[in-house]
Amino acid sequence: MTEGTPDACPVLPAHGPVRPLGLAQVSIAGGFWGGRQAVNASATLAHCESWMERLGWLANFDRVADGTTSPDRPGWSFSDSEVYKLLEALAWETGRTGDPEAESAIKRLTARVARAQDPDGYLNTCFGHDRQPPRYSDLEMGHELYNTGHLLQAAVARLRMAGEDDLVRIARRAADHVCRTFGADGLAKICGHPEIEVGLAELGRALGEDRYVEQARLFLERRGHGTLRDIPLGRAYFQDDVPIRQAEVWRGHAVRALYLTAAAVDVAVERGDDELLRAVERQWERSVARRTYITGGMGSRHQDEGFGEDWELPPDRAYCETCAGVASIMVSWRLYLATADVRYTDLIERTLYNIIATSPSPDGRAFFYANPLHQRTPGRPADGTEVSPRAEAGARAAWFEVSCCPTNVARTLASLGGYVATTDGDGLQIHQYAPCAIRAELPDGRQVAVDVETDYPETGTVRVRIAADAPAPWTLSLRVPAWADGATVTEDGQARPAEPGLLAIRRAFRAGDVITVELPTRPRFTWPDPRIDAVRGCVAVERGPEVLCVESHDLPHPDGLDGLVIDILSAPQADPGGARVRGRLPVRADRLWPYPAHPAAPAADAEWFDVPLRPYHSWAQQGPSSMRIWLPALTQGE
Amino acid sequence: MTEGTPDACPVLPAHGPVRPLGLAQVSIAGGFWGGRQAVNASATLAHCESWMERLGWLANFDRVADGTTSPDRPGWSFSDSEVYKLLEALAWETGRTGDPEAESAIKRLTARVARAQDPDGYLNTCFGHDRQPPRYSDLEMGHELYNTGHLLQAAVARLRMAGEDDLVRIARRAADHVCRTFGADGLAKICGHPEIEVGLAELGRALGEDRYVEQARLFLERRGHGTLRDIPLGRAYFQDDVPIRQAEVWRGHAVRALYLTAAAVDVAVERGDDELLRAVERQWERSVARRTYITGGMGSRHQDEGFGEDWELPPDRAYCETCAGVASIMVSWRLYLATADVRYTDLIERTLYNIIATSPSPDGRAFFYANPLHQRTPGRPADGTEVSPRAEAGARAAWFEVSCCPTNVARTLASLGGYVATTDGDGLQIHQYAPCAIRAELPDGRQVAVDVETDYPETGTVRVRIAADAPAPWTLSLRVPAWADGATVTEDGQARPAEPGLLAIRRAFRAGDVITVELPTRPRFTWPDPRIDAVRGCVAVERGPEVLCVESHDLPHPDGLDGLVIDILSAPQADPGGARVRGRLPVRADRLWPYPAHPAAPAADAEWFDVPLRPYHSWAQQGPSSMRIWLPALTQGE
Repeated sequence: MTEGTPDACPVLPAHGPVRPLGLAQVSIAGGFWGGRQAVNASATLAHCESWMERLGWLANFDRVADGTTSPDRPGWSFSDSEVYKLLEALAWETGRTGDPEAESAIKRLTARVARAQDPDGYLNTCFGHDRQPPRYSDLEMGHELYNTGHLLQAAVARLRMAGEDDLVRIARRAADHVCRTFGADGLAKICGHPEIEVGLAELGRALGEDRYVEQARLFLERRGHGTLRDIPLGRAYFQDDVPIRQAEVWRGHAVRALYLTAAAVDVAVERGDDELLRAVERQWERSVARRTYITGGMGSRHQDEGFGEDWELPPDRAYCETCAGVASIMVSWRLYLATADVRYTDLIERTLYNIIATSPSPDGRAFFYANPLHQRTPGRPADGTEVSPRAEAGARAAWFEVSCCPTNVARTLASLGGYVATTDGDGLQIHQYAPCAIRAELPDGRQVAVDVETDYPETGTVRVRIAADAPAPWTLSLRVPAWADGATVTEDGQARPAEPGLLAIRRAFRAGDVITVELPTRPRFTWPDPRIDAVRGCVAVERGPEVLCVESHDLPHPDGLDGLVIDILSAPQADPGGARVRGRLPVRADRLWPYPAHPAAPAADAEWFDVPLRPYHSWAQQGPSSMRIWLPALTQGE
Repeated sequence: MTEGTPDACPVLPAHGPVRPLGLAQVSIAGGFWGGRQAVNASATLAHCESWMERLGWLANFDRVADGTTSPDRPGWSFSDSEVYKLLEALAWETGRTGDPEAESAIKRLTARVARAQDPDGYLNTCFGHDRQPPRYSDLEMGHELYNTGHLLQAAVARLRMAGEDDLVRIARRAADHVCRTFGADGLAKICGHPEIEVGLAELGRALGEDRYVEQARLFLERRGHGTLRDIPLGRAYFQDDVPIRQAEVWRGHAVRALYLTAAAVDVAVERGDDELLRAVERQWERSVARRTYITGGMGSRHQDEGFGEDWELPPDRAYCETCAGVASIMVSWRLYLATADVRYTDLIERTLYNIIATSPSPDGRAFFYANPLHQRTPGRPADGTEVSPRAEAGARAAWFEVSCCPTNVARTLASLGGYVATTDGDGLQIHQYAPCAIRAELPDGRQVAVDVETDYPETGTVRVRIAADAPAPWTLSLRVPAWADGATVTEDGQARPAEPGLLAIRRAFRAGDVITVELPTRPRFTWPDPRIDAVRGCVAVERGPEVLCVESHDLPHPDGLDGLVIDILSAPQADPGGARVRGRLPVRADRLWPYPAHPAAPAADAEWFDVPLRPYHSWAQQGPSSMRIWLPALTQGE
């Protein structure tokens, strides 16, 4: 086995205006995300492995190796991918911390996976063996290439963090098999669930194998021409309705759409294909404006786990699969690396705090899969021993029949350092705020070293302390989020306003210099676009990067959310008091009228009282509750 | 073949406070419903048969008879039921009009069905024969007993309209087979899709076979104990989560819930089971108050074609399957017959005008399956030759892969006379207004004869003309709908107010006497319950029994519905002008703001203009359009 590289991180384009820093260059220590990384490492990784062992998803690999495959194989056709996502998470984790348990888990899992690979490189536990359907006989729903794509992503993590080993060699053989089978002279087909494309593109980058990138490009170009069979949900479900260059907006299954788009950015960058990059940027713009929730969540529909139409954003039936949040970050990060436009890192922050952070329980052993913005009735408490048959439950579940989200959260948390900062020819850009040490080298060999001190988002104070003298001037750039109206920066004791965008400070730095950014953390109202019918007459409260919510625990009556109204003339107040309380707001729980209709405004005889506003990401942690983010607002003297 | 009976109609309980009149006792002639019955007879019935022939759903019966069944059988497992629903529609139609084509279609179809029946009475084209799964091997989703239930309902129609014939004998054998297989000493199982229960109960009544009613009761009592396998949608999907006596509300798949409930009323009435009847009434009350649309539509979710939670009534993603409307009428009519409470006939009217009438195109050869209350983007025009793979399309389709709705509409329209009027010991009650002749006999032998003259709902004038002298006093009762605030009745030239409810006029009548009811037809605002989050800040306009809507055809810009606002201080105006225009309303199409949020109210520089309000049931008849029922309302000086 060879060695990893300091810049090891999930996405390393060949070129671009900025270059991401690796997990070895950004060490997050404590704080909001450091705590979550620690729980991920100490609990979630082993939790995922033990569930996959218990359910036989790991034994599926043994059965292929032992020739004992049968039609009653446990798990869905995509269960292999969970093993690969866990391997990816473990690979980032070992590289990040050197955790010997993670390292031995990698070896253990790799050995079982290796035994299941066919001599020609094909590797799948659901197709192509005794008493199984033939290889590639159900490209629409079979997930074969999807599984392979996750294998390749795991190998990228392993290769970059630790060097070439068995896992990387397995992935090479699998990728070669895919290129032979689906190359320009091969089967002109695609997989119903995109993922192979992004896996091939990154493995191609990591190994310097341009033919993998080329195969990703081929898959991308083939898509959108109705190659896949029509299904009741329509070909938009798997983005085979419109070629990606011509599409105006994301549609169909959200995770599919986003994995595909991530690969499109990779291919556009590697091939210098500006037309494709612009197409993706346009799709991002419209989809984020019209098909994305305030939480960053994507996917308005349960039926197809998919995007709805423009402005179709129901809070109660929001699907907002956790995996779509992961995939949205994959897309936005690639777009940032390609364009250096902070709107992409703004959306990443929104998604991290309100989708990724929402999923795992504090102990790292239960997860939200769907992330609605309004829970009408409390869920059933989960007991930690059951497999949830459903994505939506109103309570975090230990595991799911379709359990894509836990391992996706795990690999994202383990690699989070890779999304914190970038460099360009002139300096360092910090995008996400966490207590961390950043040690980087600029292209001309200059070393930049800073330590970030913050308890963000508890407070909005971010101190960037220069950790090494740098006599030649360089530029320190700090992202001021779009929501941070009234932010200030303090340099040499002098405070000045800081506009949203990248705040650039160019000068010579000395060790011990401190730049302080103050981001406002007063709770603030956010009004929805009036075209979002489902939340008309409502307002949300945000504080810093967190979306806040009201939970039934905090109301005098369990059904209190039904009649809740707020007065928009009373601004939400800060409340630095109780645990996880971020603000307070006066509300009224109105008497309600009998069905079916009422002719007039309600009687205003209800009492006003204050409710705590809590971060959405912590909802249902005190037990099942009803909850809402969008709060009905009084607009006249009702 | 024996003869039919004058009181032949879909539901004939053994006892109750009122007794429905038969199709031979109520002849609808022209008007809103007479026109639709004529189109149903002249176009829809043949349309349905020809599609089922074309798709091989009829040939499935031949294959069983010929021993040529195979695993590639066309159609879903419930396609047999479409043949039976068509037979039911044809049976009502022949009885109603004596149409010889309908009669010959019955003979043709019955002969093919008869050949497919196994010697022991089992009859199904999808299970139990060569290269098919065994009988009753997939009770959750196989629809075997569901199909049989529709066969029994068809036989009821035939028996009552024409007497016992081959179809009735087939049904007897099938019912006997079901009783033998699933009786008290047999398999203690149920079917995932209720329908056998209501079929058995009514066939039991029609044939005087109480054991069929008893079998229906057994199926009902078995349900709700988790007999069926759990599925990702949960056992609530097929109402196997809670016993029907304990359930508080309808949940899960809407058509399943409603067919089951219809049978529960039948069993409760036949067995004098007041506890069960009260349970169903409570479920109706809560479900209609909290889980039913203004159109009478039921089923808020696409994912499971199911009810949502209380107050979950999104207009855009409303599923409101046409079949759920049919089933809702089945339930409410049975409850009316059991209780004589006009809230049930009020809901029937709402559902008839806004769900049933919405489905078929004017030519009777295309249908809506889902009935959303808000269409954001116009559908694709249907060409009349394609099978729609989807329930929702924004355009009426000639046929569907799941084509339950066209035949359900057909049987409802053909038997509509059976829902118009009832008698009790003292007189006649008229529930639905259509031009018709009613000839009935009271229990003591008195004849009552009235002719109803009306162009309702074009106008609200309903004239009831006594057609025969009746020297002994009797009571003529006319339903004044709950919405009809300001209704009047005129008797002997004297007008007086008529309160909503049953308006009873008891006297001696002479031929030629006219009672005139004037129902108000000024368009009126209807406000939603504030707990329905999805339409907060909106108002609907209704006129008479019709819900009105705004269509994009009538707006200056095709996206105009996105920014539309109305002023609730300007009442909607009547507009007796153009075809299918029922009113006018001043609206403003606001400029809209950029994403993602806006801090203030819109600039009020947009122009006000009038838009026509059209009946919802006629939307998309002029071609694909966007449409909305709930209109955003200005509530302050915006």
